[in-house]
Amino acid sequence: MKTHTDFLQLPTRGQGTYEITEDVARIVCASGVKTGTATVLIQHTSASLILYENADPTARVDLEEFFKRLVPENASYFRHTAEGPDDMPSHLRMVLTRSSEVIPIVDGLLALGTWQGLFVFEHRRAPHRRRLVVMILGE
Amino acid sequence: MKTHTDFLQLPTRGQGTYEITEDVARIVCASGVKTGTATVLIQHTSASLILYENADPTARVDLEEFFKRLVPENASYFRHTAEGPDDMPSHLRMVLTRSSEVIPIVDGLLALGTWQGLFVFEHRRAPHRRRLVVMILGE
Amino acid sequence: MKTHTDFLQLPTRGQGTYEITEDVARIVCASGVKTGTATVLIQHTSASLILYENADPTARVDLEEFFKRLVPENASYFRHTAEGPDDMPSHLRMVLTRSSEVIPIVDGLLALGTWQGLFVFEHRRAPHRRRLVVMILGE
Repeated sequence: MKTHTDFLQLPTRGQGTYEITEDVARIVCASGVKTGTATVLIQHTSASLILYENADPTARVDLEEFFKRLVPENASYFRHTAEGPDDMPSHLRMVLTRSSEVIPIVDGLLALGTWQGLFVFEHRRAPHRRRLVVMILGE
Repeated sequence: MKTHTDFLQLPTRGQGTYEITEDVARIVCASGVKTGTATVLIQHTSASLILYENADPTARVDLEEFFKRLVPENASYFRHTAEGPDDMPSHLRMVLTRSSEVIPIVDGLLALGTWQGLFVFEHRRAPHRRRLVVMILGE
Repeated sequence: MKTHTDFLQLPTRGQGTYEITEDVARIVCASGVKTGTATVLIQHTSASLILYENADPTARVDLEEFFKRLVPENASYFRHTAEGPDDMPSHLRMVLTRSSEVIPIVDGLLALGTWQGLFVFEHRRAPHRRRLVVMILGE
């Protein structure tokens, strides 16, 4: 059993989803681990992680629209408003999705389903450089 | 430290919750691992995982009703509609819950609370055969 | 590679967020693990875990208000009402957030972002004693 640590930096260009499946798969490959887990953590509270449909891009457009409606900007009760109207909604959208995701590694590959991809879900409008930690455990 | 890999196939009969705690517990037992973690991943984007109240079935009925209201079918802005009215809502219900769950193993048992069970949350109306990966790490 | 198991008990004083980052960091330190993962599970279905903004307390006030609106008490369709009006909403708020969180350990520390803290999100009004399991894997 061994561990393998790596980091990713992802520049985002506003709200939306950014697939990182291949970036994580490359780290799994470099680790030499054939059986174990890949833990991915995004080190931010205004962006999150999701495993999502990666075939039809309209599924990601609808996702974005749904979250715009579920978590409104400028809610009258918001007090955390110093960083702009998209800041407090970004924390709420993050908390409704995930900060870490753990994916089994089987035969040296991420054991994802056919249509599953790992995405960073960016909730801020301005470009950001997002940092992620990838921790591989296994043998 | 060692790893132990197994797979589950769960036939679902439409929207609702299907408990798999015992199936995962059996894999933990077969692994011989006494201390570690059980990572469970559902390899689909229209079904998800939840740890949920497993004593009173009405809590699961109310869960289903809540999600029917939170994620409407036939939203006017949906573009991802080719696979039927329950397809896009299934992706949204999945993303609001979980794709993977990691449960500590203590004394050879899943260290769940008294009322906690692990469930597949099926979001499609038609029967599906759902595949899950279970990865045990520990000693 | 080794495992290290520990437990936390957190007394809560009604709905809200309770930071436990330092409690988990102490367990990581005691484990001696320098590289690996910390898995935290809350053994309840009416309280949950979140990684959340830990700098500005207003972000946590707004979080609480948002969830009060997203998950109403006394919904007319609720059947699971025997334990009071805050019981069924507590299960729904739990299922929309997380029961387990996995945080990479790098250089003997939880590899969290600058503004990230781990919180217990209490959904019941009455004081509760919440139990958590912390499982450290690594070397």
